[in-house]
Amino acid sequence: MIEKIRITLADVFEARGQSKRFGYAFDAFLMTLIFANVLAIVMESVPSMAHEHARFFTYFELVSVFIFAIEYLARVWASVDLNRFADSSLSPTKRRLRYLISPMAVIDLIAILPSLLMFLVPFDLRFLRVLRLLRIFKLTRYSRAMQLMLNTIQEEASSLFAAFFIMTVILIIAASGIYLLEHDVQPDKFGSIPAAMWWAIITLTTVGYGDTVPVTLMGKIFGGIITILSMGMVAIPTGILASSFSEQLRKRRRTYSEMVHQLMEDGIICHQERIKLNELRLELGLSVQEAAHLEEQVRDQHPLLKRFCPQCGHNLE
Amino acid sequence: MIEKIRITLADVFEARGQSKRFGYAFDAFLMTLIFANVLAIVMESVPSMAHEHARFFTYFELVSVFIFAIEYLARVWASVDLNRFADSSLSPTKRRLRYLISPMAVIDLIAILPSLLMFLVPFDLRFLRVLRLLRIFKLTRYSRAMQLMLNTIQEEASSLFAAFFIMTVILIIAASGIYLLEHDVQPDKFGSIPAAMWWAIITLTTVGYGDTVPVTLMGKIFGGIITILSMGMVAIPTGILASSFSEQLRKRRRTYSEMVHQLMEDGIICHQERIKLNELRLELGLSVQEAAHLEEQVRDQHPLLKRFCPQCGHNLE
Amino acid sequence: MIEKIRITLADVFEARGQSKRFGYAFDAFLMTLIFANVLAIVMESVPSMAHEHARFFTYFELVSVFIFAIEYLARVWASVDLNRFADSSLSPTKRRLRYLISPMAVIDLIAILPSLLMFLVPFDLRFLRVLRLLRIFKLTRYSRAMQLMLNTIQEEASSLFAAFFIMTVILIIAASGIYLLEHDVQPDKFGSIPAAMWWAIITLTTVGYGDTVPVTLMGKIFGGIITILSMGMVAIPTGILASSFSEQLRKRRRTYSEMVHQLMEDGIICHQERIKLNELRLELGLSVQEAAHLEEQVRDQHPLLKRFCPQCGHNLE
Amino acid sequence: MIEKIRITLADVFEARGQSKRFGYAFDAFLMTLIFANVLAIVMESVPSMAHEHARFFTYFELVSVFIFAIEYLARVWASVDLNRFADSSLSPTKRRLRYLISPMAVIDLIAILPSLLMFLVPFDLRFLRVLRLLRIFKLTRYSRAMQLMLNTIQEEASSLFAAFFIMTVILIIAASGIYLLEHDVQPDKFGSIPAAMWWAIITLTTVGYGDTVPVTLMGKIFGGIITILSMGMVAIPTGILASSFSEQLRKRRRTYSEMVHQLMEDGIICHQERIKLNELRLELGLSVQEAAHLEEQVRDQHPLLKRFCPQCGHNLE
Repeated sequence: MIEKIRITLADVFEARGQSKRFGYAFDAFLMTLIFANVLAIVMESVPSMAHEHARFFTYFELVSVFIFAIEYLARVWASVDLNRFADSSLSPTKRRLRYLISPMAVIDLIAILPSLLMFLVPFDLRFLRVLRLLRIFKLTRYSRAMQLMLNTIQEEASSLFAAFFIMTVILIIAASGIYLLEHDVQPDKFGSIPAAMWWAIITLTTVGYGDTVPVTLMGKIFGGIITILSMGMVAIPTGILASSFSEQLRKRRRTYSEMVHQLMEDGIICHQERIKLNELRLELGLSVQEAAHLEEQVRDQHPLLKRFCPQCGHNLE
Repeated sequence: MIEKIRITLADVFEARGQSKRFGYAFDAFLMTLIFANVLAIVMESVPSMAHEHARFFTYFELVSVFIFAIEYLARVWASVDLNRFADSSLSPTKRRLRYLISPMAVIDLIAILPSLLMFLVPFDLRFLRVLRLLRIFKLTRYSRAMQLMLNTIQEEASSLFAAFFIMTVILIIAASGIYLLEHDVQPDKFGSIPAAMWWAIITLTTVGYGDTVPVTLMGKIFGGIITILSMGMVAIPTGILASSFSEQLRKRRRTYSEMVHQLMEDGIICHQERIKLNELRLELGLSVQEAAHLEEQVRDQHPLLKRFCPQCGHNLE
Repeated sequence: MIEKIRITLADVFEARGQSKRFGYAFDAFLMTLIFANVLAIVMESVPSMAHEHARFFTYFELVSVFIFAIEYLARVWASVDLNRFADSSLSPTKRRLRYLISPMAVIDLIAILPSLLMFLVPFDLRFLRVLRLLRIFKLTRYSRAMQLMLNTIQEEASSLFAAFFIMTVILIIAASGIYLLEHDVQPDKFGSIPAAMWWAIITLTTVGYGDTVPVTLMGKIFGGIITILSMGMVAIPTGILASSFSEQLRKRRRTYSEMVHQLMEDGIICHQERIKLNELRLELGLSVQEAAHLEEQVRDQHPLLKRFCPQCGHNLE
Repeated sequence: MIEKIRITLADVFEARGQSKRFGYAFDAFLMTLIFANVLAIVMESVPSMAHEHARFFTYFELVSVFIFAIEYLARVWASVDLNRFADSSLSPTKRRLRYLISPMAVIDLIAILPSLLMFLVPFDLRFLRVLRLLRIFKLTRYSRAMQLMLNTIQEEASSLFAAFFIMTVILIIAASGIYLLEHDVQPDKFGSIPAAMWWAIITLTTVGYGDTVPVTLMGKIFGGIITILSMGMVAIPTGILASSFSEQLRKRRRTYSEMVHQLMEDGIICHQERIKLNELRLELGLSVQEAAHLEEQVRDQHPLLKRFCPQCGHNLE
């Protein structure tokens, strides 16, 4: 009986089988709750709001943490039946431990920890309050955008790290140079290399607040050169990411073409295959025209596939 | 008789049939009027100008609104005969209602509404005056650039939304962090998370006004990290749009190649086909050299098309 | 005799025939003179420099203008024998008139005009002095970079114009909105829509001086939205130009491949053809490896060309 | 005996033969030392730190310079046996001289020179101290990122130089224009064209400190135009680098495909070839999926290679 409840819970969490619909509803409810939490925490930081609606914020927080805590415990308990452990021979305890150290479980824990501490320990309250905002990362489970960003960063990690390394080198050189040139005139702003780094970073990223600015002739000349370098600094990550994005576009089209090719090997695309293709199209984010064009290209490239009528699948020979 | 006038009006509005030329002239007149209106409204906001030429602005506005109102009513009346309803079996009233809720009709209404309100209701005048500027969107009907932009945004909507979502998450984290670190030192500028968002947004977009700037050591370190992230923030939409633009270029060339291929199937490109190709070339914004090259490529790829002399179309076999 | 001098002059100006070397030397001399002139004019604007070396600047200017004037007259006189008129049947006078209205001739005239006016008319001296800087455009004749930029701008003119149009629309909307929201609080900075445009343009281009900044809550919210739009504004021209540059790279490789294909049709690339290829390679700015790779690709794609030994051209069958 | 030591040293420096492991350890040790040095020099510039830990910094510097000096001398001594001289017939002295003028040897010398001068000459101490930071360039030997950046800059040198030239021209025009328009109102900020260049460069790179800003109407209009141009200025290098990066991605995939094609010519990829491929994959920074896909493509394009079972290499005919 208890096992049955556990399996149903796992079904809901993974939106599979008969609990698919309920799983979607549960996800929608949690996302709404997370958004409401973020909004509430942001609003609570406004003194007047915090004062007026103090009670509401406290109760809302209590209810939210309660739900998140229940969710966390339920997920840990039901983790035994997750898809990823379907073929493994681990014991239930080991499965739960393995789930506990998975990134999503850690995020779920972080989402409730600051509030628990707040109720227990007499800590710096404001710090813990803001820390609750970390529960925004719970959205990672639901947002394709955040997963895509994480993927892009992972894939381009080496390039981005190289760009970051070069940036650090330029940063140190820029800070040292301006420190040498402006130190005597503006000792309060360029008093040491770490202090000068604030100017360097604000300039190299083209933010340019203007709170620290070189004033000597040599400082301005050196600053001007660094400023021109800053354009390259912006251009390098932009170039990496722009290449990466166009590459991803290319890959998606290729994936779709291959699927079309495979499904067409018997000469026709039946109704079920059409549904499958459409799902893939949506998943890859391709437009209807784009997909139609790719399909046509596959037909053109593989003349054998043309022996059948593309409309009805009738063998034309 | 009245029906004839209505059909002629529709012909003018859609620049078709015998009224083509008159339709172009009408478009040119309306565009000029819209530009003049925008200029007048901008100028009227200068106090000295508004005072000196008060009369001129009032009369110009009256005449403009009158013309736009007549245009609006005429378009609604003639909408029965528009191309889009050519094959439909809707009743005239339904056609008009359907036209009334089309985006362009709504824009046309918005263009005259603020002025009508201004003459009727004792409302906040300045607000309504500036609202008249919304008639700049009437240009959407004529400007390929604005249609292209809308298309690009539509096509890349999901990517741009993903970028926007990630940006919001980073924004909230940046604002919360700086709020924690700078709240005590600068309570007037970083008094709450929403207040700190002004700093976050100005920094993450690399605008960097410098009106709110972290001053504590920890605030500067955190600010520096956020500033470096800002480069990624600029890079992501740039990457998406750059990929999208190069993709569009590719699509245009493909469209042209396909048209050439289709027209060449009979072995020659006759005079009429040449005119058609040239129109397509202009529509796609391809240069003469580019088009010539694409044509040559098509000839090379399809050797069957080479059996005919590419100069005179003589069958060479 | 005089005709001979004229032809020699034209030879020098176009660096052709026997006067090739002298033509190159003449170009180098003129470029140096233009650079020296720009430097002198920039330096002369520094009051202390202008005062100390007043005499030097005057004499240098006199000599420079004299040389530029002689050059201009010589070019006009010799324009009869320019390459572009080689096959035309125009009379010498008409050739010269046509040359006079060519862009380069106009630039040459502009280079000397301000100085002539300065010696003749009692005009605003500083304005004319700075106007002399326009002679920097004389470099267009020699700089491939400036010609390339002009070409890119010409080719992408329609896209860039579209981007510019959209930017103007956004600019007007941004200026109107901030004018409405900040007018009452900061009438000195947002007193009219044209005044508010200064803020709009500085924000939309992400320059962000911080001299005019919204201070009201609504103004900051609207400003934040405009600031996010600014990222798109930067991204659009970047996207257009990035696509255009990668397109140009593609075109160059194609041009090289085609030349290789053409030269290889007889199975071998002889010494003279090799020199020709190398010249093309330099002109297109391709690296040696890139060129070698393209050559190999051509050989692979056209197996017929492989029947001959790629080293010595010996027929291998 | 001494020769044996020298050869062992060269083996360590080039991480070859039996000393491979020791070579890697030596590299790791040197990299750590360089990082520690950079950190120490940056920290020493903070007055309080320099005062408190004066002794530590002095000893650390002494030890570091000693190690770097030994390294330098050892490298020069062992340079006779470097790989690059393996096939040359130069005398040992000539080899050492040639090594001495190689870029890496010069960087190694620069890394120790300021400290030597500091101990010897009574020079401006702070200047020499900061100059020691140049030893950060010693990392070039170990960092693929810095080598990659140098390669990209070399390859795109002509394009980047063209962009730089155009930027200089726009810079001079912007500075001259704003000098003319703002000189009378703000003589302290726009007193000469070189002074106005500070504003021009800060604006054209979109840094926008806001320390010098046009205030007159004409100055603002001109400034606005320059600001819009600034977007193009940022776009041009971004475009060049984005194209260059996507080109490099393309090249890498091509290199991998070619290697696969070559290794597959005998129909199978044996274990050793698989190791070789994997090494190439890591060197090119390709993901496993990408590599697998490229391999499949090669198989598809060359049907001859399919006559063998891709799994076991069995001849299928």
